[in-house]
Amino acid sequence: MKSLDRFIRALRRLPGVGPRQAERFAAYFLRTSQGETEEFISALTALKQGIKLCRVCFCYSEADVCPICSDDDRDHSQICVVEDPQDIEAIEKTGAYKGLYHVLHGAISPLDGRGAEQVKVRELLARIQQASPAVREVILATDPDSEGETTALYLADLLRGQVEQITRIGYGVPLGGDIDYVDEMTLGYSLKGRTKL
Amino acid sequence: MKSLDRFIRALRRLPGVGPRQAERFAAYFLRTSQGETEEFISALTALKQGIKLCRVCFCYSEADVCPICSDDDRDHSQICVVEDPQDIEAIEKTGAYKGLYHVLHGAISPLDGRGAEQVKVRELLARIQQASPAVREVILATDPDSEGETTALYLADLLRGQVEQITRIGYGVPLGGDIDYVDEMTLGYSLKGRTKL
Repeated sequence: MKSLDRFIRALRRLPGVGPRQAERFAAYFLRTSQGETEEFISALTALKQGIKLCRVCFCYSEADVCPICSDDDRDHSQICVVEDPQDIEAIEKTGAYKGLYHVLHGAISPLDGRGAEQVKVRELLARIQQASPAVREVILATDPDSEGETTALYLADLLRGQVEQITRIGYGVPLGGDIDYVDEMTLGYSLKGRTKL
Repeated sequence: MKSLDRFIRALRRLPGVGPRQAERFAAYFLRTSQGETEEFISALTALKQGIKLCRVCFCYSEADVCPICSDDDRDHSQICVVEDPQDIEAIEKTGAYKGLYHVLHGAISPLDGRGAEQVKVRELLARIQQASPAVREVILATDPDSEGETTALYLADLLRGQVEQITRIGYGVPLGGDIDYVDEMTLGYSLKGRTKL
């Protein structure tokens, strides 16, 4: 059935979805009511229309500037640099961090031909140079894999002299891991025990 | 973010999707292009509009009567009764069966309050009574779990006298399993070695 094959192709683009799971999802939509399917489509449409990138930190936000960047109670002299928006949620859950964030939307990966201009590095530099009050510390919380390490080293070089302190989270995060899979305790510990680069 | 929470709630209704996978899927849609999202929605809409139930066997079909039911080369004197439409595909892959199908859309489950009237049993009986040429054999290929067994025994009772032979697939299908997870060899073997009830 052509329309089934087409939808299964669309489902297979979702991260980690194989042929079997795609079939199960398609069967769910075939089985479910028209109303439920319409709610799914409407929720997806609202997601794409309602959520944009915060123009300061590039996390997902319903407003122009996200709630974290507009929160005066947070420490605006600290910026924690992460690869992906979902990393913010993982760090927020630890309760160990009260500064701001910056989302790169990826990591530098020379092997994949992804350089600094493909991620939000220029925006980070401009943000630090224009910040008032000044940014005192940049915490590099990129993933502890080879691309994340490359990115952290690149940023440490780039930002040296621009801020008082450049740190890298480290203790506790397992090597080769993915930041947003780490449990809250470990991630909180790795934030408190961050090292200076 | 309200629109994110709403879409995650919609995603959680998909079979087997937990909070972590729902977040990953939402992140995919936030990241992906508008065009790709539109193709997803359009494929889903086409699926719901284009696919209905075959009015003979109740499998999914783009036509009023599905290709299997309208195929004169298939043996119309055999009906294989399955719980779900995806079971048909699994049986077709074995190449061991050339008859027709009947999809119950579930199994009888007294514990869940699901009786014979909630699945396509009446339709099966009417179909057999009206069939010309007559149906010679009904193969009960419901899942080998307690609901599937209950359904098979119920149907065997109901259809006794209506058809020459009532058989149940058996050899090779592991107990407690799910028909459409079984490998092709095992399922083919269980079809060939079916037992008379």
